[in-house]
Amino acid sequence: MTPYSLDNPVFQIYAVAACLALLKLIGHSFYTVFQMVRNDGGYLNPEDLRKTLFNPKPDPRQLNAIEEVERARRMHRNEMENTPAFLVAGWLLVAVSPSLLFVVVTMVGYLLARLAHTYAYATKRDHEVRAACFTAGALCTVAMVVHVLVSVLLR
Amino acid sequence: MTPYSLDNPVFQIYAVAACLALLKLIGHSFYTVFQMVRNDGGYLNPEDLRKTLFNPKPDPRQLNAIEEVERARRMHRNEMENTPAFLVAGWLLVAVSPSLLFVVVTMVGYLLARLAHTYAYATKRDHEVRAACFTAGALCTVAMVVHVLVSVLLR
Amino acid sequence: MTPYSLDNPVFQIYAVAACLALLKLIGHSFYTVFQMVRNDGGYLNPEDLRKTLFNPKPDPRQLNAIEEVERARRMHRNEMENTPAFLVAGWLLVAVSPSLLFVVVTMVGYLLARLAHTYAYATKRDHEVRAACFTAGALCTVAMVVHVLVSVLLR
Repeated sequence: MTPYSLDNPVFQIYAVAACLALLKLIGHSFYTVFQMVRNDGGYLNPEDLRKTLFNPKPDPRQLNAIEEVERARRMHRNEMENTPAFLVAGWLLVAVSPSLLFVVVTMVGYLLARLAHTYAYATKRDHEVRAACFTAGALCTVAMVVHVLVSVLLR
Repeated sequence: MTPYSLDNPVFQIYAVAACLALLKLIGHSFYTVFQMVRNDGGYLNPEDLRKTLFNPKPDPRQLNAIEEVERARRMHRNEMENTPAFLVAGWLLVAVSPSLLFVVVTMVGYLLARLAHTYAYATKRDHEVRAACFTAGALCTVAMVVHVLVSVLLR
Repeated sequence: MTPYSLDNPVFQIYAVAACLALLKLIGHSFYTVFQMVRNDGGYLNPEDLRKTLFNPKPDPRQLNAIEEVERARRMHRNEMENTPAFLVAGWLLVAVSPSLLFVVVTMVGYLLARLAHTYAYATKRDHEVRAACFTAGALCTVAMVVHVLVSVLLR
Protein backbone atom coordinates (compact mmCIF):
# COMPACT_ATOMS: atom_id res chain seq x y z
CA MET A 1 0.00 0.00 0.00
CA THR A 2 1.19 3.50 -0.80
CA PRO A 3 0.96 5.98 2.09
CA TYR A 4 0.07 8.69 -0.45
CA SER A 5 -3.53 7.61 -0.62
CA LEU A 6 -6.69 9.51 0.21
CA ASP A 7 -7.59 6.55 2.44
CA ASN A 8 -4.63 7.31 4.73
CA PRO A 9 -5.62 9.78 7.50
CA VAL A 10 -2.02 10.96 7.81
CA PHE A 11 -1.98 11.86 4.12
CA GLN A 12 -5.36 13.57 4.42
CA ILE A 13 -4.06 15.83 7.20
CA TYR A 14 -0.86 16.57 5.28
CA ALA A 15 -2.76 17.33 2.08
CA VAL A 16 -5.04 19.84 3.82
CA ALA A 17 -2.17 21.46 5.75
CA ALA A 18 -0.06 21.68 2.60
CA CYS A 19 -2.92 23.25 0.62
CA LEU A 20 -3.46 25.88 3.32
CA ALA A 21 0.28 26.61 3.49
CA LEU A 22 0.39 26.90 -0.33
CA LEU A 23 -2.56 29.30 -0.41
CA LYS A 24 -0.89 31.43 2.27
CA LEU A 25 2.40 31.43 0.34
CA ILE A 26 0.71 32.47 -2.91
CA GLY A 27 -1.41 34.97 -0.98
CA HIS A 28 1.74 36.86 0.03
CA SER A 29 2.38 37.73 -3.65
CA PHE A 30 -1.05 39.26 -3.90
CA TYR A 31 -0.67 41.03 -0.55
CA THR A 32 2.46 42.74 -1.89
CA VAL A 33 0.55 43.76 -5.03
CA PHE A 34 -2.26 45.06 -2.80
CA GLN A 35 0.20 47.21 -0.85
CA MET A 36 1.71 48.59 -4.09
CA VAL A 37 -1.75 49.52 -5.40
CA ARG A 38 -2.80 50.98 -2.06
CA ASN A 39 0.35 53.10 -1.74
CA ASP A 40 0.50 53.87 -5.46
CA GLY A 41 4.21 53.02 -5.58
CA GLY A 42 7.03 50.88 -4.29
CA TYR A 43 7.68 49.67 -7.82
CA LEU A 44 10.98 48.00 -8.74
CA ASN A 45 11.19 48.39 -12.52
CA PRO A 46 11.89 51.55 -14.54
CA GLU A 47 9.24 50.52 -17.08
CA ASP A 48 6.60 50.67 -14.32
CA LEU A 49 6.71 54.46 -14.67
CA ARG A 50 5.06 54.33 -18.10
CA LYS A 51 1.64 55.87 -18.38
CA THR A 52 -0.78 52.95 -18.62
CA LEU A 53 -4.37 52.08 -17.75
CA PHE A 54 -3.48 51.20 -14.15
CA ASN A 55 -0.90 53.95 -13.73
CA PRO A 56 -2.53 57.00 -15.30
CA LYS A 57 -0.30 59.53 -13.47
CA PRO A 58 3.26 58.15 -13.39
CA ASP A 59 5.71 59.85 -11.01
CA PRO A 60 9.41 59.03 -10.54
CA ARG A 61 8.76 58.82 -6.78
CA GLN A 62 6.79 55.62 -7.45
CA LEU A 63 10.17 53.87 -7.60
CA ASN A 64 11.07 54.97 -4.07
CA ALA A 65 10.94 52.34 -1.35
CA ILE A 66 7.69 52.48 0.62
CA GLU A 67 7.81 50.97 4.09
CA GLU A 68 4.47 49.13 3.83
CA VAL A 69 5.41 47.59 0.47
CA GLU A 70 8.88 46.61 1.72
CA ARG A 71 7.24 45.09 4.80
CA ALA A 72 4.98 43.00 2.55
CA ARG A 73 8.11 41.85 0.65
CA ARG A 74 9.91 40.94 3.88
CA MET A 75 6.86 38.98 5.05
CA HIS A 76 6.79 37.16 1.72
CA ARG A 77 10.49 36.39 1.87
CA ASN A 78 10.13 35.03 5.39
CA GLU A 79 7.33 32.75 4.18
CA MET A 80 9.53 31.57 1.29
CA GLU A 81 12.29 30.80 3.76
CA ASN A 82 10.02 28.48 5.72
CA THR A 83 7.12 27.02 3.74
CA PRO A 84 8.90 25.05 0.97
CA ALA A 85 10.90 23.26 3.70
CA PHE A 86 7.68 22.50 5.61
CA LEU A 87 5.99 21.16 2.47
CA VAL A 88 8.83 18.77 1.62
CA ALA A 89 9.34 17.71 5.25
CA GLY A 90 5.63 16.89 5.51
CA TRP A 91 5.72 14.87 2.33
CA LEU A 92 8.65 12.85 3.64
CA LEU A 93 6.92 12.41 6.99
CA VAL A 94 3.90 10.75 5.38
CA ALA A 95 6.22 8.01 4.06
CA VAL A 96 7.45 6.92 7.50
CA SER A 97 4.03 6.16 9.07
CA PRO A 98 4.10 8.69 11.92
CA SER A 99 1.45 8.70 14.65
CA LEU A 100 -1.62 10.81 13.94
CA LEU A 101 -0.90 12.87 17.06
CA PHE A 102 2.60 13.80 15.89
CA VAL A 103 1.29 14.78 12.47
CA VAL A 104 -1.49 16.94 13.88
CA VAL A 105 0.76 18.69 16.42
CA THR A 106 3.56 19.54 13.97
CA MET A 107 1.37 20.46 11.00
CA VAL A 108 -1.28 22.45 12.84
CA GLY A 109 1.52 23.91 14.95
CA TYR A 110 3.34 25.08 11.84
CA LEU A 111 0.23 26.67 10.34
CA LEU A 112 -0.70 28.47 13.57
CA ALA A 113 2.88 29.67 14.10
CA ARG A 114 3.02 31.13 10.58
CA LEU A 115 -0.38 32.81 10.92
CA ALA A 116 0.80 34.33 14.20
CA HIS A 117 4.08 35.41 12.55
CA THR A 118 2.21 37.17 9.76
CA TYR A 119 -0.11 38.88 12.25
CA ALA A 120 2.86 40.00 14.38
CA TYR A 121 4.73 41.26 11.31
CA ALA A 122 1.76 43.13 9.83
CA THR A 123 0.89 44.76 13.15
CA LYS A 124 4.54 45.63 13.94
CA ARG A 125 4.81 43.76 17.22
CA ASP A 126 8.11 43.62 19.09
CA HIS A 127 10.95 41.71 17.51
CA GLU A 128 10.70 39.06 20.24
CA VAL A 129 7.09 38.19 19.34
CA ARG A 130 7.98 37.77 15.66
CA ALA A 131 11.07 35.74 16.55
CA ALA A 132 9.07 33.44 18.83
CA CYS A 133 6.50 32.74 16.08
CA PHE A 134 9.22 32.10 13.51
CA THR A 135 11.07 29.77 15.88
CA ALA A 136 7.92 27.81 16.76
CA GLY A 137 7.20 27.19 13.07
CA ALA A 138 10.79 26.27 12.26
CA LEU A 139 10.90 23.84 15.19
CA CYS A 140 7.76 22.09 13.90
CA THR A 141 9.53 21.53 10.58
CA VAL A 142 12.74 20.43 12.33
CA ALA A 143 10.74 17.94 14.44
CA MET A 144 9.26 16.48 11.23
CA VAL A 145 12.70 16.21 9.62
CA VAL A 146 14.25 14.58 12.70
CA HIS A 147 11.36 12.07 12.83
CA VAL A 148 12.03 11.12 9.20
CA LEU A 149 15.79 10.84 9.78
CA VAL A 150 15.33 8.64 12.86
CA SER A 151 12.74 6.46 11.11
CA VAL A 152 15.03 5.82 8.16
CA LEU A 153 18.27 5.38 10.11
CA LEU A 154 16.82 3.18 12.91
CA ARG A 155 14.55 0.98 10.81
CA MET B 1 -1.73 1.09 -7.10
CA THR B 2 0.43 4.13 -6.44
CA PRO B 3 -0.44 7.13 -8.61
CA TYR B 4 3.30 8.01 -8.71
CA SER B 5 3.99 5.47 -11.41
CA LEU B 6 5.39 5.94 -14.89
CA ASP B 7 2.33 3.98 -16.10
CA ASN B 8 0.01 6.76 -14.92
CA PRO B 9 -0.51 9.39 -17.68
CA VAL B 10 -1.28 12.06 -15.05
CA PHE B 11 2.07 11.41 -13.40
CA GLN B 12 3.84 11.42 -16.77
CA ILE B 13 2.47 14.87 -17.54
CA TYR B 14 3.34 16.16 -14.09
CA ALA B 15 6.85 14.73 -14.26
CA VAL B 16 7.57 16.42 -17.60
CA ALA B 17 6.02 19.73 -16.52
CA ALA B 18 7.93 19.65 -13.22
CA CYS B 19 11.22 18.93 -15.00
CA LEU B 20 10.70 21.85 -17.37
CA ALA B 21 9.78 24.14 -14.47
CA LEU B 22 12.88 22.98 -12.56
CA LEU B 23 15.16 23.60 -15.54
CA LYS B 24 13.70 27.09 -15.94
CA LEU B 25 14.15 27.80 -12.21
CA ILE B 26 17.78 26.67 -12.26
CA GLY B 27 18.29 28.50 -15.55
CA HIS B 28 17.53 31.81 -13.83
CA SER B 29 20.67 31.40 -11.67
CA PHE B 30 22.78 31.03 -14.77
CA TYR B 31 20.99 33.91 -16.50
CA THR B 32 21.96 36.18 -13.59
CA VAL B 33 25.57 34.97 -13.87
CA PHE B 34 25.41 35.64 -17.63
CA GLN B 35 24.27 39.22 -17.00
CA MET B 36 27.06 39.76 -14.46
CA VAL B 37 29.68 38.51 -16.92
CA ARG B 38 28.19 40.51 -19.77
CA ASN B 39 28.08 43.73 -17.75
CA ASP B 40 31.37 43.00 -15.97
CA GLY B 41 29.83 43.90 -12.61
CA GLY B 42 26.77 43.90 -10.38
CA TYR B 43 28.67 41.84 -7.82
CA LEU B 44 27.45 41.60 -4.24
CA ASN B 45 30.54 40.57 -2.27
CA PRO B 46 33.60 42.69 -1.38
CA GLU B 47 35.88 39.72 -2.13
CA ASP B 48 34.62 39.72 -5.73
CA LEU B 49 36.91 42.72 -6.32
CA ARG B 50 40.04 40.60 -5.98
CA LYS B 51 42.19 40.24 -9.06
CA THR B 52 41.58 36.71 -10.33
CA LEU B 53 41.55 34.75 -13.56
CA PHE B 54 37.99 35.78 -14.40
CA ASN B 55 38.32 39.31 -13.06
CA PRO B 56 41.72 40.49 -14.35
CA LYS B 57 40.92 44.23 -13.92
CA PRO B 58 38.99 44.71 -10.69
CA ASP B 59 37.28 48.05 -10.17
CA PRO B 60 35.27 49.20 -7.12
CA ARG B 61 32.42 50.16 -9.46
CA GLN B 62 31.87 46.44 -10.08
CA LEU B 63 29.95 46.44 -6.78
CA ASN B 64 27.51 49.08 -8.03
CA ALA B 65 24.00 47.92 -8.89
CA ILE B 66 23.57 47.36 -12.63
CA GLU B 67 20.02 47.49 -13.90
CA GLU B 68 20.30 44.44 -16.18
CA VAL B 69 21.79 42.32 -13.37
CA GLU B 70 19.20 43.52 -10.86
CA ARG B 71 16.50 42.75 -13.42
CA ALA B 72 17.84 39.19 -13.73
CA ARG B 73 17.72 38.89 -9.91
CA ARG B 74 14.14 40.19 -9.79
CA MET B 75 13.13 37.70 -12.50
CA HIS B 76 14.76 34.91 -10.50
CA ARG B 77 13.06 35.98 -7.29
CA ASN B 78 9.69 36.05 -9.04
CA GLU B 79 10.30 32.51 -10.27
CA MET B 80 11.23 31.41 -6.73
CA GLU B 81 8.00 32.94 -5.46
CA ASN B 82 5.95 30.81 -7.83
CA THR B 83 7.63 27.60 -8.95
CA PRO B 84 8.16 25.74 -5.64
CA ALA B 85 4.44 26.19 -4.93
CA PHE B 86 3.56 24.87 -8.40
CA LEU B 87 5.83 21.84 -7.97
CA VAL B 88 4.30 20.83 -4.64
CA ALA B 89 0.74 21.57 -5.77
CA GLY B 90 1.27 19.38 -8.83
CA TRP B 91 2.64 16.55 -6.74
CA LEU B 92 -0.40 16.70 -4.46
CA LEU B 93 -2.69 16.87 -7.48
CA VAL B 94 -1.38 13.57 -8.84
CA ALA B 95 -2.56 11.86 -5.64
CA VAL B 96 -6.22 12.82 -6.06
CA SER B 97 -6.76 11.30 -9.55
CA PRO B 98 -7.66 14.47 -11.46
CA SER B 99 -8.94 14.35 -15.03
CA LEU B 100 -6.27 14.43 -17.72
CA LEU B 101 -7.83 17.60 -19.13
CA PHE B 102 -7.53 19.46 -15.81
CA VAL B 103 -3.92 18.38 -15.45
CA VAL B 104 -2.97 19.46 -18.96
CA VAL B 105 -4.73 22.82 -18.71
CA THR B 106 -3.27 23.81 -15.34
CA MET B 107 0.25 22.48 -15.92
CA VAL B 108 0.73 23.63 -19.51
CA GLY B 109 -1.02 26.84 -18.51
CA TYR B 110 1.46 27.42 -15.70
CA LEU B 111 4.47 26.78 -17.92
CA LEU B 112 3.21 29.06 -20.70
CA ALA B 113 2.31 31.81 -18.23
CA ARG B 114 5.79 31.70 -16.70
CA LEU B 115 7.51 31.72 -20.09
CA ALA B 116 5.40 34.72 -21.07
CA HIS B 117 6.22 36.41 -17.74
CA THR B 118 9.94 35.96 -18.31
CA TYR B 119 9.66 37.29 -21.87
CA ALA B 120 7.65 40.30 -20.70
CA TYR B 121 10.12 40.99 -17.88
CA ALA B 122 13.24 40.64 -20.06
CA THR B 123 11.79 42.84 -22.80
CA LYS B 124 10.50 45.45 -20.33
CA ARG B 125 6.84 45.29 -21.29
CA ASP B 126 4.25 47.34 -19.43
CA HIS B 127 3.56 46.45 -15.82
CA GLU B 128 0.08 45.23 -16.80
CA VAL B 129 1.46 42.58 -19.19
CA ARG B 130 3.83 41.24 -16.53
CA ALA B 131 1.06 41.29 -13.92
CA ALA B 132 -1.32 39.40 -16.21
CA CYS B 133 1.26 36.66 -16.86
CA PHE B 134 2.07 36.35 -13.17
CA THR B 135 -1.62 36.19 -12.27
CA ALA B 136 -2.37 33.53 -14.89
CA GLY B 137 0.42 31.31 -13.54
CA ALA B 138 -0.60 31.84 -9.92
CA LEU B 139 -4.23 31.02 -10.73
CA CYS B 140 -3.16 27.72 -12.35
CA THR B 141 -1.44 26.79 -9.09
CA VAL B 142 -4.41 27.96 -7.02
CA ALA B 143 -6.76 25.86 -9.18
CA MET B 144 -4.58 22.81 -8.51
CA VAL B 145 -4.55 23.50 -4.77
CA VAL B 146 -8.33 24.01 -4.63
CA HIS B 147 -8.86 20.76 -6.56
CA VAL B 148 -6.74 18.90 -4.00
CA LEU B 149 -8.54 20.55 -1.07
CA VAL B 150 -11.98 19.73 -2.47
CA SER B 151 -10.95 16.16 -3.29
CA VAL B 152 -9.72 15.53 0.23
CA LEU B 153 -12.52 17.31 2.08
CA LEU B 154 -15.43 15.95 -0.03
CA ARG B 155 -14.24 12.37 -0.41
CA MET C 1 4.97 -1.52 -5.23
CA THR C 2 5.42 2.15 -4.45
CA PRO C 3 9.00 3.41 -4.76
CA TYR C 4 8.35 5.71 -1.77
CA SER C 5 8.86 2.90 0.71
CA LEU C 6 11.40 2.59 3.50
CA ASP C 7 12.26 -0.80 1.97
CA ASN C 8 13.58 0.90 -1.19
CA PRO C 9 17.31 1.75 -0.85
CA VAL C 10 16.93 4.59 -3.37
CA PHE C 11 14.23 6.15 -1.23
CA GLN C 12 16.31 5.66 1.92
CA ILE C 13 19.21 7.57 0.38
CA TYR C 14 16.92 10.31 -0.89
CA ALA C 15 15.17 10.63 2.47
CA VAL C 16 18.46 11.05 4.35
CA ALA C 17 19.88 13.48 1.76
CA ALA C 18 16.66 15.50 1.77
CA CYS C 19 16.61 15.68 5.58
CA LEU C 20 20.20 16.93 5.66
CA ALA C 21 19.46 19.49 2.94
CA LEU C 22 16.36 20.64 4.85
CA LEU C 23 18.29 21.01 8.11
CA LYS C 24 20.94 23.06 6.30
CA LEU C 25 18.29 25.25 4.67
CA ILE C 26 16.56 25.92 8.01
CA GLY C 27 19.94 26.38 9.66
CA HIS C 28 20.64 29.39 7.42
CA SER C 29 17.73 31.26 9.07
CA PHE C 30 19.29 30.70 12.46
CA TYR C 31 22.76 31.60 11.18
CA THR C 32 21.40 34.99 10.04
CA VAL C 33 19.81 35.48 13.48
CA PHE C 34 23.15 34.53 15.06
CA GLN C 35 24.96 37.17 12.99
CA MET C 36 22.37 39.82 13.95
CA VAL C 37 22.78 39.01 17.64
CA ARG C 38 26.56 38.90 17.38
CA ASN C 39 26.76 42.24 15.55
CA ASP C 40 23.91 43.77 17.58
CA GLY C 41 22.26 45.10 14.42
CA GLY C 42 21.51 44.59 10.77
CA TYR C 43 17.78 44.74 11.54
CA LEU C 44 15.24 45.36 8.79
CA ASN C 45 12.17 46.64 10.65
CA PRO C 46 11.65 50.05 12.30
CA GLU C 47 9.91 48.36 15.25
CA ASP C 48 13.13 46.44 15.97
CA LEU C 49 14.49 49.67 17.50
CA ARG C 50 12.07 49.45 20.45
CA LYS C 51 13.60 48.93 23.85
CA THR C 52 12.87 45.31 24.76
CA LEU C 53 14.34 42.48 26.79
CA PHE C 54 16.68 41.43 23.98
CA ASN C 55 17.45 44.96 22.79
CA PRO C 56 18.03 46.93 26.01
CA LYS C 57 19.95 49.77 24.30
CA PRO C 58 18.29 50.53 20.95
CA ASP C 59 20.23 52.69 18.51
CA PRO C 60 19.09 53.89 15.07
CA ARG C 61 22.35 52.53 13.64
CA GLN C 62 21.00 49.03 14.31
CA LEU C 63 19.03 49.44 11.07
CA ASN C 64 22.22 50.03 9.04
CA ALA C 65 23.37 47.22 6.79
CA ILE C 66 26.13 45.15 8.42
CA GLU C 67 28.33 43.21 6.04
CA GLU C 68 28.37 39.97 8.08
CA VAL C 69 24.57 39.98 8.41
CA GLU C 70 24.08 40.77 4.72
CA ARG C 71 26.53 37.97 3.90
CA ALA C 72 24.43 35.56 5.97
CA ARG C 73 21.34 36.70 4.04
CA ARG C 74 23.07 36.22 0.69
CA MET C 75 24.17 32.74 1.73
CA HIS C 76 20.59 31.95 2.76
CA ARG C 77 19.20 33.29 -0.50
CA ASN C 78 21.67 31.20 -2.49
CA GLU C 79 20.53 28.11 -0.58
CA MET C 80 16.88 28.97 -1.30
CA GLU C 81 17.74 29.28 -4.98
CA ASN C 82 19.09 25.74 -5.06
CA THR C 83 17.70 23.45 -2.36
CA PRO C 84 13.94 23.42 -3.15
CA ALA C 85 14.81 22.41 -6.74
CA PHE C 86 17.09 19.65 -5.46
CA LEU C 87 14.40 18.35 -3.08
CA VAL C 88 11.74 18.13 -5.80
CA ALA C 89 14.15 16.73 -8.40
CA GLY C 90 15.19 14.02 -5.94
CA TRP C 91 11.60 13.12 -5.20
CA LEU C 92 10.88 12.77 -8.92
CA LEU C 93 14.05 10.74 -9.39
CA VAL C 94 12.92 8.12 -6.86
CA ALA C 95 9.88 7.44 -9.07
CA VAL C 96 11.89 6.45 -12.15
CA SER C 97 13.97 3.64 -10.54
CA PRO C 98 17.45 5.08 -11.05
CA SER C 99 20.58 3.08 -10.32
CA LEU C 100 21.88 3.29 -6.77
CA LEU C 101 25.17 4.65 -8.10
CA PHE C 102 23.49 7.56 -9.91
CA VAL C 103 21.48 8.41 -6.80
CA VAL C 104 24.51 8.36 -4.51
CA VAL C 105 26.68 10.42 -6.86
CA THR C 106 24.11 13.15 -7.52
CA MET C 107 22.73 13.39 -3.98
CA VAL C 108 26.01 13.17 -2.06
CA GLY C 109 27.51 15.40 -4.75
CA TYR C 110 24.84 18.03 -4.18
CA LEU C 111 25.27 17.99 -0.40
CA LEU C 112 29.07 18.23 -0.59
CA ALA C 113 28.91 21.01 -3.18
CA ARG C 114 26.55 23.03 -0.99
CA LEU C 115 28.67 22.51 2.12
CA ALA C 116 31.72 23.66 0.17
CA HIS C 117 29.77 26.66 -1.18
CA THR C 118 28.79 27.71 2.35
CA TYR C 119 32.38 27.30 3.57
CA ALA C 120 33.72 29.31 0.63
CA TYR C 121 31.11 32.04 1.16
CA ALA C 122 31.63 32.30 4.93
CA THR C 123 35.43 32.41 4.58
CA LYS C 124 35.30 34.90 1.68
CA ARG C 125 37.13 32.79 -0.88
CA ASP C 126 37.59 34.04 -4.43
CA HIS C 127 34.51 34.37 -6.59
CA GLU C 128 35.74 31.48 -8.77
CA VAL C 129 35.72 29.02 -5.82
CA ARG C 130 32.17 29.98 -4.87
CA ALA C 131 31.04 29.80 -8.49
CA ALA C 132 32.57 26.35 -8.93
CA CYS C 133 30.78 25.01 -5.83
CA PHE C 134 27.48 26.52 -6.92
CA THR C 135 27.85 25.09 -10.43
CA ALA C 136 28.71 21.61 -9.15
CA GLY C 137 25.58 21.55 -6.98
CA ALA C 138 23.36 22.91 -9.75
CA LEU C 139 24.71 20.33 -12.22
CA CYS C 140 23.85 17.50 -9.79
CA THR C 141 20.26 18.75 -9.75
CA VAL C 142 20.22 19.18 -13.52
CA ALA C 143 21.51 15.61 -13.96
CA MET C 144 18.65 14.35 -11.78
CA VAL C 145 16.09 16.35 -13.77
CA VAL C 146 17.47 15.15 -17.11
CA HIS C 147 17.39 11.54 -15.89
CA VAL C 148 13.71 11.94 -14.97
CA LEU C 149 12.88 13.60 -18.30
CA VAL C 150 14.64 10.89 -20.30
CA SER C 151 13.03 8.11 -18.24
CA VAL C 152 9.54 9.49 -18.81
CA LEU C 153 9.96 10.41 -22.47
CA LEU C 154 11.79 7.24 -23.56
CA ARG C 155 9.79 4.67 -21.61
